[in-house]
Amino acid sequence: MRHANAQLQSDRRAEILDAARICFARSGFHQTSMQEICVQAGMSPGNLYRYFRSKEAIIAGIAERDRAEVAEQFSQAEFAPDFFVALEAMARHHFAERSDVDVALCAELMTESRRNPEIGRIYRNFDADVKARLIGMLQQAAERGDISRDVDLEAAVSLLMTIADGVWWRRASNPQFDAKPLVPLFMDVIRHVLRARR
Amino acid sequence: MRHANAQLQSDRRAEILDAARICFARSGFHQTSMQEICVQAGMSPGNLYRYFRSKEAIIAGIAERDRAEVAEQFSQAEFAPDFFVALEAMARHHFAERSDVDVALCAELMTESRRNPEIGRIYRNFDADVKARLIGMLQQAAERGDISRDVDLEAAVSLLMTIADGVWWRRASNPQFDAKPLVPLFMDVIRHVLRARR
Repeated sequence: MRHANAQLQSDRRAEILDAARICFARSGFHQTSMQEICVQAGMSPGNLYRYFRSKEAIIAGIAERDRAEVAEQFSQAEFAPDFFVALEAMARHHFAERSDVDVALCAELMTESRRNPEIGRIYRNFDADVKARLIGMLQQAAERGDISRDVDLEAAVSLLMTIADGVWWRRASNPQFDAKPLVPLFMDVIRHVLRARR
Repeated sequence: MRHANAQLQSDRRAEILDAARICFARSGFHQTSMQEICVQAGMSPGNLYRYFRSKEAIIAGIAERDRAEVAEQFSQAEFAPDFFVALEAMARHHFAERSDVDVALCAELMTESRRNPEIGRIYRNFDADVKARLIGMLQQAAERGDISRDVDLEAAVSLLMTIADGVWWRRASNPQFDAKPLVPLFMDVIRHVLRARR
């Protein structure tokens, strides 16, 4: 019974996070009210506040869940037989398979992070976590001999993340932008950066 | 006398646009009021409305002015003796010399363009204008023999603009992000994309 209760609570939390994603992506973080999230989640305000006390707390919950997903993706990549195949799968996922809601939410949080210190902290911690994982992934690839050992990993990861952010900027500002055709050129550039610079 | 009057009007317009840039960058487009712009410009609301009837009209004015600047930059690049030197100067300007206010304003308009059709139209027209100029610049470089004639210009420009947007995303979300060290790597990548693909 206690177990069923915990499961129910966890499901309700997940439903709130899903509803909030949609609201923030649609209306922006600042313009979204807790009331709008209640309506989207089909829940009373009293009930919502039992789970999350503020929009910032909801964003922290979303970030925590996304971080677990990112960790899962990186650990899958770690056991992939070929580094570049694994990286291409991650690029395809990020460029083309992530939903418009994900892209819009991220764009909203990027701008909100400029004004709201708590969102800024969550945003930059997330970014630093991805950066550390990417550097770790490249270090492992260098140890395996998949990429050159003389690459400036910091600079390479900075470029990689810049391109990834740029793809989402273009998707966010233009729903017609199709990033899938960029994947082969991106991989060509990344191979060049990771192998050819000695 | 009429000439002096026209000059005064043009100066006042420019002052309003400058004040509005600062307000939008600081508070976001949606959260900025015409009143806030009046205060920043040191002007009465009645006077402000004589020049601009809405925040959207102000953004159109900012875009028009920026577009003239962009046109000027591209025509300077056109007469530069070396294509890659000209491109590097443009990259350095965009990555590191443009102000934090420019970057913040652009990020705000990018997110606002998702919800506000008028801003969306201005944003995407500006983007299409830059894209057409870049393609023209690369076509000219290909005719001169500075870059390979077999490059897929559409894809190359898409990558170039994606990196440029990514740099501004990273600058907007992290005031500590220094994009200057990326310029040499960016140029290396662009040389690779424009020359080596046959």
